[in-house]
Amino acid sequence: MNSKILCFGELLVRLSAPNHLTLQQTHSLDLQFTGAEANVAVALAQFNLSANYLTCVPDNEMGRMGLGMLRKYKVDTDSCVFGGERLGLFYFEMGIGHRPSKVLYDRSYSSLAMIEKGQIDWGKVLEGITWFHWSGITPAISQAAADATLEALQAAKERNITISCDLNYRASLWKYGKHPSQIMPELIRYCHLLVGDTETIDTYFGIKEMNIHLLASQTFDSFPNLQNIALTFRKSIHASHNTYRATLCTRSNFFESKEYDIVDILDRLGTGDAFMAGLIYALQKIENTEQYAIDFATAAATLNHTIYGDFNLLKVNEIEALMQGNTGGRVIR
Amino acid sequence: MNSKILCFGELLVRLSAPNHLTLQQTHSLDLQFTGAEANVAVALAQFNLSANYLTCVPDNEMGRMGLGMLRKYKVDTDSCVFGGERLGLFYFEMGIGHRPSKVLYDRSYSSLAMIEKGQIDWGKVLEGITWFHWSGITPAISQAAADATLEALQAAKERNITISCDLNYRASLWKYGKHPSQIMPELIRYCHLLVGDTETIDTYFGIKEMNIHLLASQTFDSFPNLQNIALTFRKSIHASHNTYRATLCTRSNFFESKEYDIVDILDRLGTGDAFMAGLIYALQKIENTEQYAIDFATAAATLNHTIYGDFNLLKVNEIEALMQGNTGGRVIR
Amino acid sequence: MNSKILCFGELLVRLSAPNHLTLQQTHSLDLQFTGAEANVAVALAQFNLSANYLTCVPDNEMGRMGLGMLRKYKVDTDSCVFGGERLGLFYFEMGIGHRPSKVLYDRSYSSLAMIEKGQIDWGKVLEGITWFHWSGITPAISQAAADATLEALQAAKERNITISCDLNYRASLWKYGKHPSQIMPELIRYCHLLVGDTETIDTYFGIKEMNIHLLASQTFDSFPNLQNIALTFRKSIHASHNTYRATLCTRSNFFESKEYDIVDILDRLGTGDAFMAGLIYALQKIENTEQYAIDFATAAATLNHTIYGDFNLLKVNEIEALMQGNTGGRVIR
Amino acid sequence: MNSKILCFGELLVRLSAPNHLTLQQTHSLDLQFTGAEANVAVALAQFNLSANYLTCVPDNEMGRMGLGMLRKYKVDTDSCVFGGERLGLFYFEMGIGHRPSKVLYDRSYSSLAMIEKGQIDWGKVLEGITWFHWSGITPAISQAAADATLEALQAAKERNITISCDLNYRASLWKYGKHPSQIMPELIRYCHLLVGDTETIDTYFGIKEMNIHLLASQTFDSFPNLQNIALTFRKSIHASHNTYRATLCTRSNFFESKEYDIVDILDRLGTGDAFMAGLIYALQKIENTEQYAIDFATAAATLNHTIYGDFNLLKVNEIEALMQGNTGGRVIR
Amino acid sequence: MNSKILCFGELLVRLSAPNHLTLQQTHSLDLQFTGAEANVAVALAQFNLSANYLTCVPDNEMGRMGLGMLRKYKVDTDSCVFGGERLGLFYFEMGIGHRPSKVLYDRSYSSLAMIEKGQIDWGKVLEGITWFHWSGITPAISQAAADATLEALQAAKERNITISCDLNYRASLWKYGKHPSQIMPELIRYCHLLVGDTETIDTYFGIKEMNIHLLASQTFDSFPNLQNIALTFRKSIHASHNTYRATLCTRSNFFESKEYDIVDILDRLGTGDAFMAGLIYALQKIENTEQYAIDFATAAATLNHTIYGDFNLLKVNEIEALMQGNTGGRVIR
Amino acid sequence: MNSKILCFGELLVRLSAPNHLTLQQTHSLDLQFTGAEANVAVALAQFNLSANYLTCVPDNEMGRMGLGMLRKYKVDTDSCVFGGERLGLFYFEMGIGHRPSKVLYDRSYSSLAMIEKGQIDWGKVLEGITWFHWSGITPAISQAAADATLEALQAAKERNITISCDLNYRASLWKYGKHPSQIMPELIRYCHLLVGDTETIDTYFGIKEMNIHLLASQTFDSFPNLQNIALTFRKSIHASHNTYRATLCTRSNFFESKEYDIVDILDRLGTGDAFMAGLIYALQKIENTEQYAIDFATAAATLNHTIYGDFNLLKVNEIEALMQGNTGGRVIR
Repeated sequence: MNSKILCFGELLVRLSAPNHLTLQQTHSLDLQFTGAEANVAVALAQFNLSANYLTCVPDNEMGRMGLGMLRKYKVDTDSCVFGGERLGLFYFEMGIGHRPSKVLYDRSYSSLAMIEKGQIDWGKVLEGITWFHWSGITPAISQAAADATLEALQAAKERNITISCDLNYRASLWKYGKHPSQIMPELIRYCHLLVGDTETIDTYFGIKEMNIHLLASQTFDSFPNLQNIALTFRKSIHASHNTYRATLCTRSNFFESKEYDIVDILDRLGTGDAFMAGLIYALQKIENTEQYAIDFATAAATLNHTIYGDFNLLKVNEIEALMQGNTGGRVIR
Repeated sequence: MNSKILCFGELLVRLSAPNHLTLQQTHSLDLQFTGAEANVAVALAQFNLSANYLTCVPDNEMGRMGLGMLRKYKVDTDSCVFGGERLGLFYFEMGIGHRPSKVLYDRSYSSLAMIEKGQIDWGKVLEGITWFHWSGITPAISQAAADATLEALQAAKERNITISCDLNYRASLWKYGKHPSQIMPELIRYCHLLVGDTETIDTYFGIKEMNIHLLASQTFDSFPNLQNIALTFRKSIHASHNTYRATLCTRSNFFESKEYDIVDILDRLGTGDAFMAGLIYALQKIENTEQYAIDFATAAATLNHTIYGDFNLLKVNEIEALMQGNTGGRVIR
Repeated sequence: MNSKILCFGELLVRLSAPNHLTLQQTHSLDLQFTGAEANVAVALAQFNLSANYLTCVPDNEMGRMGLGMLRKYKVDTDSCVFGGERLGLFYFEMGIGHRPSKVLYDRSYSSLAMIEKGQIDWGKVLEGITWFHWSGITPAISQAAADATLEALQAAKERNITISCDLNYRASLWKYGKHPSQIMPELIRYCHLLVGDTETIDTYFGIKEMNIHLLASQTFDSFPNLQNIALTFRKSIHASHNTYRATLCTRSNFFESKEYDIVDILDRLGTGDAFMAGLIYALQKIENTEQYAIDFATAAATLNHTIYGDFNLLKVNEIEALMQGNTGGRVIR
Repeated sequence: MNSKILCFGELLVRLSAPNHLTLQQTHSLDLQFTGAEANVAVALAQFNLSANYLTCVPDNEMGRMGLGMLRKYKVDTDSCVFGGERLGLFYFEMGIGHRPSKVLYDRSYSSLAMIEKGQIDWGKVLEGITWFHWSGITPAISQAAADATLEALQAAKERNITISCDLNYRASLWKYGKHPSQIMPELIRYCHLLVGDTETIDTYFGIKEMNIHLLASQTFDSFPNLQNIALTFRKSIHASHNTYRATLCTRSNFFESKEYDIVDILDRLGTGDAFMAGLIYALQKIENTEQYAIDFATAAATLNHTIYGDFNLLKVNEIEALMQGNTGGRVIR
Repeated sequence: MNSKILCFGELLVRLSAPNHLTLQQTHSLDLQFTGAEANVAVALAQFNLSANYLTCVPDNEMGRMGLGMLRKYKVDTDSCVFGGERLGLFYFEMGIGHRPSKVLYDRSYSSLAMIEKGQIDWGKVLEGITWFHWSGITPAISQAAADATLEALQAAKERNITISCDLNYRASLWKYGKHPSQIMPELIRYCHLLVGDTETIDTYFGIKEMNIHLLASQTFDSFPNLQNIALTFRKSIHASHNTYRATLCTRSNFFESKEYDIVDILDRLGTGDAFMAGLIYALQKIENTEQYAIDFATAAATLNHTIYGDFNLLKVNEIEALMQGNTGGRVIR
Repeated sequence: MNSKILCFGELLVRLSAPNHLTLQQTHSLDLQFTGAEANVAVALAQFNLSANYLTCVPDNEMGRMGLGMLRKYKVDTDSCVFGGERLGLFYFEMGIGHRPSKVLYDRSYSSLAMIEKGQIDWGKVLEGITWFHWSGITPAISQAAADATLEALQAAKERNITISCDLNYRASLWKYGKHPSQIMPELIRYCHLLVGDTETIDTYFGIKEMNIHLLASQTFDSFPNLQNIALTFRKSIHASHNTYRATLCTRSNFFESKEYDIVDILDRLGTGDAFMAGLIYALQKIENTEQYAIDFATAAATLNHTIYGDFNLLKVNEIEALMQGNTGGRVIR
């Protein structure tokens, strides 16, 4: 497989109170790195695809540490640019039982949010790239980031690069004066693969429709380049117990995953990114195997609930084992 | 609200083996502070009430550390007195699944157990106080502590202070030669609000009655000052899975909470104190809202199973969210 | 009770990634010691039996540390011999939910695997011993270890010592060129008590039979010295949720345990060894009480899922409490 | 003593790599709180003075946690205001031997840096205050913070409050377009006590003078309200070994401390704040005892090198023991 | 060597704030066990002597854990008795540089302090014992413990057992109404080997003499059974830097060790016990080698400053390497 | 600079007892990776050179983790081959003061020790390489590894690649029946740069000479390809305090570094590898600057004593700061 994927987005520091402590209680924080698109890149690298990551980080110990952690997991970070003053971060309180997890963002004024036109040489970074992935978080953080995303999409289109987007709506971002419906539709026009859920599609595109078939059909109508739309459905029984399933819509058909009952959740964050990566992996691995793709992506997301941190560190064979019904967790010796 | 609540009782060191280790296995102990009445004070402070705490601690690093931890959570410790030689403590082994938790008390001869008459100037500490809270643990630890409790109750009565008591029966205390039935009835006569369970009411007052309506009615008959009795009902499925519900009895009516199914229990200790605090908060916040009160108290106890340590650190809005059915633990961003 | 039990087998270092981290993520490893037969010895010592352990460890800090940890838990290690160059070890990744645990063996060339004839003076180590326990792991690790096992069994037989064996099949061992069916039958001929499961009995003895009564009867026919066969049945719902039950077969009867639903598994490893130890304890404690024995052994295995590490650290009264239905895990004060 | 001191400045999160790890290596960060003026407040509270702290923090878990940690150490935080979006923070790499410590600031756009006129009601917060303390860090972080400082000083002057300032020059701050010489002289005009060093006095006031007597005399000439100037002298042998001494200048005299040889430094940060607090404590405790004051402040700074974190947690008697020559660190039982 | 040594004294829990934190700062405590005589037993076991330990502990998880830790290090605990309610404990704050370490005792009412006459069967525990060791701490904790000590000494004398005592004066004990000079002289009359320092000899026996030769001679005069007196001399430069040397006095001669410069002290506690054990080991290993004995004991104490916790875990060859001048700490591969 | 360096050698797991605990005491081990040549590669990558690493690791979680950690620090691991069954490892006890550190090797039978002819395609891995680095450890571990080294050197010579060797004598290796003097001379014939010390030169080549000038001259005579020999001189005052200096010998001249006094050593391992990397970096960076080279290499080794773990993580500017005399460790803000 000669695909080469570039994921573009913000790298974040995740500072988690350990052992389900609340932030008020803790005296140490686990230091990890994340970012919806970085997570996708890491997952793809575990699937043995050539995964590249593009972001802007400050030229200091924290910026370099973040890129190092991506390289550890086989992501190529050579395209990254240095600039700006800070890595965005969030404090994380891990819920349990009836207590919800909390993400306390402190990501304003980050290096990527303050990226300047020209800092990224799109011609160079897209060289050899066959797939470009971005998410709805980037245009949410600042006008500059939204502009950079558009620039990227235009450059990618010129090079006939396949484009995927995870809609990823975060209401607490979008603070720079624009509503997502003013920004996202234009950006989505460039995309071939879209992942989202019904609420976000309503928020971004004003498509208010509970019937999935109709929803997909209206979305396809709005975005002629779109080839696949995947919708994920999560039910929260409580913080450590969710259910999860997904549907992949092509212009002609619908493919449904089984529904997983996910108990003893170790870490809920990043599971949507594992889904996204699973889909990218599976769709380009074998053609015409949409059913495999939605099954693989759903199993990847499910299994990623067992990994501490946002990165997906699971291998294809481990995910396929779950797909094939090996849900029992027997000790492997 | 101009209420000012004083909680009186023993401050304890809790030394827990981390990560569900047994005491025999562990090489470090988590250091926390607790005490039924201290826990109530902390919870009330989180509910933005003016919470004061009165105890006697040794004038050393451990005593000062304990008071400091209460101040951290906004409890006023200015009334506390220094004296005696040791803070009581217990070693704690956190159970899981079918293995029960163990509390290994080492609290004899503590500063409060050996309090001397006159060490506390009740006139001064009760100044401005509108509500006095104590529990059945204090008269259980020593004759001196039982005497101090009586002294307190008499002084509080003179000042028309509302009085609440959590019956809190601990069979492994009461080692100084008295049976609770010789001590508790006299002390309860001063109380307006009582929290307990059917077994303890039998042990303390000899009221053996499984019908709650009859039980409440007999208890009201025995204690003419009593206005409210709350009874809590816990079922232990296993160490990490309980159910919990409660009933509030007034002289004229009964109010029942829903029953919560509490899974993935992080820390079972202190949850009864969260209930007690929830009741104190809710009963004085809005009059004639007993149903809200029992619902709030039960939700507070339920949610507190998710907090490591005995202190309740949850806010009113978080508890109300659970009351309103937000049990799903979705990530808050 | 004047029984004195000798357990013979390999002592291993267990290096576990803490907190359900994967090995790729972790930067520290919990250091513990294990070994199927060492675990049995530790469990027997907790049951207040005289438990002796025999192995061969290198004469260095790690070898001495391992024996020290056994002594801590009251196992007599005076028979152990020093020799060879390394303690076998395994890296351990603790699964959760749908993610299986992984044991990554690095135990080749260990001190016991390379034991030499004559290093153990069987006459001396068996002095005063009334019961000898071994498992199918030892003959799996090397020809030398298989030879030593045979030597031990012959010496034990001469002294009329009762012999038990846990079949313990590990497919990833047996790398020295022999199939278990070439080695195990000869060794089992010496045994009085056998613990296993249907698959292993097929692998070792070629007895392919799903009907337990017939399976037991055929096994008894093959091995005239055998008095008891216990079969265990585990179902893996997921990594943190199993069911477990067992059957004890005598030559004339069958005794079945109840089936336990084991949730919130803290550590699955070593639970079979707790079963084995429970059986040894119960069978020699009181005669003609096979039902007690299978109940006790099953409860011991069940409860051991709540102990971190492979050692069983539970006492007889704690296991009996579970047998008697105290499954609720209420706090013990 | 009826003094009541208000310290005004920015509260910061300190995120330290533990055990002398570099930031690139660490996977957890110790979470502590600091701020030059907060540190002074904590130290004063340990000296049993009435210490109040004023800052602006975001109304979230981190802001509340920070204030809680100050209350733990007996600082009154009732004057604090909530506002803005983030607590400033810095990552900290603890040097050792020849490797210097590194402070990586990420404090731009903090709640205090973006304080708005009117957010603080100076009349109210200064009520009952007898001493006001600030430092050169506050006017360095933003124009808004510099403005607030001026407002504070004017209000304090109106109320005849004694004013102290620690010059605290941080070259990497002052990024909003002003040089300290444009801001600091006007603010210092209100001060009665000044702590600094020769370099900073040059940078702020253009007084370039190595002779301390002349330097003090010129500074007194420039600022007629000034009563005391203290100068500290640190020599860095290496990261874990410094020397430290100080001089207190009055308008008529000079008082010199002994020079301490400080080895095995545990934590160098915050030691200057301990000096500042020591001086405030000693100068108002007993009049006309400048020698005691400079000795106490120097000993406080010295001893604070042994406390992890920036807060000074030592008591008057511990500092006085060092002053009196008890440098040997014998075990106290 | 057929010697068998019995060490008698109190087993204590040591709860240390990790990483030089103060008790006020810490949120976990390292759990270790200690006791002057237990430490001697552990050290002797490392020297491959047969070391037995006698104490009284409560029959609970903490008591059993304590004995387990001694067995781990090869001490025989079979003589120990169970009884009483609590293990004594102390909180420990590890000093550094100019900050002294602090021991905060909480050991009153311990199982050994409340030992009853007859609880120990001296005839049985002294069977086969050739050397009995005790220290001045035991008679300091209670009259009952002092009585038990006397009983032991009388029984040991009847059996011609060699007796050693470490004077170990702790001013903060001796709270039961007796001054050591009322108790110790009678007990020392039974001893053959004494370890102490000049101040303690003054306190216990009223021998006020700075000339060591005269001091030894007067002490020998007072106690006719005494054969050897060892005096240790420690200078505290600061908490992490001491010097240490010792003198061994026989009735006819004096033997002086070299003086060690001990830097980078990891843990100062228990080093005197390592000295005591070194002396016991060396004096009975080879006769007429007093110079070896004092050199070995001093080197043992010196090297034990590098071991965390109070137990001495060093081997004879490691101590001898230091004696022979290998002070450089070169990596051993 | 277009240099591209390949370092070839064994990757090891380092398992260290934390906080200066002994192995007998510890219950967790810090997991790190090392290897003399891997350390050189990491250091070179920090100096912004293109550093490649070649080893053979098992295709499992531990092998992949090890390579990941190298990638984190910018080392290219694409040449590495998978094979064999185990990563070599060592347990590490960190000394302090007079207690030496201990390395307990468990590296026999490792993947590299059992490498097979043909597993590495030397033509491919040397493509584009300008410098090849190896050390005396590789031929010490097995005949197969020695053979592979020779193969590598021959292939490198054919390609005119510059070759460096760190003599790195480990007496406890060399267990396969050869003395280094039978193996090393042949291998060194290919080298241009050699780092060692006088003892090792004697052991390997039989050159017994204390005069450095004569020693260098004789070594140059024996190995005509050699251009530079560097000799390092370490004095161990104690485990935490060494001195370090070095000399660089060319065929015509001698260049001496200053001698550093290294106190408060955090981690002594890997410092020789930092020296080696410093030399490689400096010698190819600027020609004819031998004095800079020996100064830089010595400063790199010195500063690396402050980094936990064997990897050198310091940057050129940090090392140059030390070279220029900035030894004071002042806080960098």
